[in-house]
Amino acid sequence: MRRHIINSTDAVISEALEGLTLAHPNLLRYNAEHGFITRAAPARDKVGLVSGGGSGHEPLHVGLVGVGMLDVAVAGAVFASPTALQVHEGTIAADSGRGVVQIVKNYTGDVLNFTIAGELAGDHDVQTEMVLVDDDLATDTSDPDAPGRRGTTATVIVEKVAGALAERGGDLRQVTTIARRTARHSRTMSLALAAGTHPGSDDPQFDLDAGEIELGVGIHGERGVRRAAFAPADELAASLVEPLVEDLGLRRGAAVLAVVNGLGGETPIELAIVTRAVHRLLADRGITVRRNLVGDYVTSLDMHGFSVTLTPADDELTDLWDAPVRTPALTW
Amino acid sequence: MRRHIINSTDAVISEALEGLTLAHPNLLRYNAEHGFITRAAPARDKVGLVSGGGSGHEPLHVGLVGVGMLDVAVAGAVFASPTALQVHEGTIAADSGRGVVQIVKNYTGDVLNFTIAGELAGDHDVQTEMVLVDDDLATDTSDPDAPGRRGTTATVIVEKVAGALAERGGDLRQVTTIARRTARHSRTMSLALAAGTHPGSDDPQFDLDAGEIELGVGIHGERGVRRAAFAPADELAASLVEPLVEDLGLRRGAAVLAVVNGLGGETPIELAIVTRAVHRLLADRGITVRRNLVGDYVTSLDMHGFSVTLTPADDELTDLWDAPVRTPALTW
Repeated sequence: MRRHIINSTDAVISEALEGLTLAHPNLLRYNAEHGFITRAAPARDKVGLVSGGGSGHEPLHVGLVGVGMLDVAVAGAVFASPTALQVHEGTIAADSGRGVVQIVKNYTGDVLNFTIAGELAGDHDVQTEMVLVDDDLATDTSDPDAPGRRGTTATVIVEKVAGALAERGGDLRQVTTIARRTARHSRTMSLALAAGTHPGSDDPQFDLDAGEIELGVGIHGERGVRRAAFAPADELAASLVEPLVEDLGLRRGAAVLAVVNGLGGETPIELAIVTRAVHRLLADRGITVRRNLVGDYVTSLDMHGFSVTLTPADDELTDLWDAPVRTPALTW
Repeated sequence: MRRHIINSTDAVISEALEGLTLAHPNLLRYNAEHGFITRAAPARDKVGLVSGGGSGHEPLHVGLVGVGMLDVAVAGAVFASPTALQVHEGTIAADSGRGVVQIVKNYTGDVLNFTIAGELAGDHDVQTEMVLVDDDLATDTSDPDAPGRRGTTATVIVEKVAGALAERGGDLRQVTTIARRTARHSRTMSLALAAGTHPGSDDPQFDLDAGEIELGVGIHGERGVRRAAFAPADELAASLVEPLVEDLGLRRGAAVLAVVNGLGGETPIELAIVTRAVHRLLADRGITVRRNLVGDYVTSLDMHGFSVTLTPADDELTDLWDAPVRTPALTW
């Protein structure tokens, strides 16, 4: 049984967004009418970046709004896409005259609603480009009828890199190009020891026996590749790193940006132990971790588990990654 | 049952500290021999700040090492004080010739070991001053034989404020004075819906029925004031804010620094809803939140709950709070 610190299930997201902006008065504003978060000081004369999706993955996306990253994040209900109207209003709000890049995780509802919003924005003379993030290797399949790989933690990398180029004055085509390239080259694998629990529910989304984990789990509790045996941290990390290295074709001498992401229910101690394992696994293969990011960035409520994301890191990507950023969840 | 992502119970802290420094190569170094974390680039010619204590409260203290905050954080085993020798070595490492302030949470083992370490440092001609943090209102008592109030989240405020003054060139007396004043004026109250679980154990430290919470819980799972009824978030927040306001004697027109701290197992959504409630409760009483900090800063493994800390905020405190800081957990 897992209880929730909430007032009512209906008000969970609106109250949380109000609280988030009270926590960061210098960074964020909340548009309560349309359910999105903007920068406290909207940018002028730059390509706008809008993202969003279902809630329950915080700090993604609402905690990644700010200078150097998103202009607007649109928040749906827990694990449910925001409406096309919400996304439309958010897209218009992100525009400062040079067009808007929509960064969208690959889920049917999100893709549909961002597409409609993009068309509506066109009617308002706002140019948009959609960038799809589909990094979840567990859902890679040759089935042409499948919906394709799900979008997950690579979204943070795409938003950081595209945000940096937009801040530097990149035009709509340039920002779209770097965002698509980053998304295309990124892969993620996740695992869970315990599922998350919806606000308003007492029971986790699925149950696991003491001896098993869910390998390749999705950020909404979707099933993954298979149930695998529970094992020490180093082995769990290897079960994610090995398929990533193979799929990306990383060879000795390669350099990567690595994200070790907590899914919500793990402790900082556990995530640090996994980080050590990931660094050692990559070093053993002659792969350099050029930059890394460790923490809870794309969560699944209180799910106990973690994901690893790898993106090959050339000089351009590294330079954009290093550019200044000031958001609630990411600041340097 | 709660499992742990670790390799072995013996190696939990050493592997986590190694992983933490791999995650932040530009900020941190790990002294494996003596079990402490230092800045990657040690400061010169400033008052040193050393803190530490049992592990399991991350990011406190190891994630608060860096420019504008700590020079050294000494890490004990989970919920166990570091040894006097560890603290001694950490204290010496924090010295750059102008003396060292030891910031110590009020627990018997920590106080004892930091005291011994301070005396040993004197033998090495390193001047030290100890600052005791004892903000936990739940343990306030008139019993002269009691060990006094426990130290908890105010430690973050003390470390930030003292760290800023040390960075600006304050001398040992000045840094000690501001640290002691900040500690003396800060109070914290905590509550838990579920206890944390030790690495290596499957079972939480205590059990609660569905209808109850632990009010005034300690960060090691110690009992608090009483078991109280589970309630909506706004009421839970009020049960912490009201005694704080009363004890601090905050009147209409007062201004505070407020910390809404997650104990580890709560989601960002829950913490944001609590933040909204805290702001409203203070606004209703005519108290201004001059600055606030929201997030997991002083955790108790995966305990599900939160704490609220209030410190009256004058211009000096606010100015030191706003000073630049660059640590893994706190950067602006």
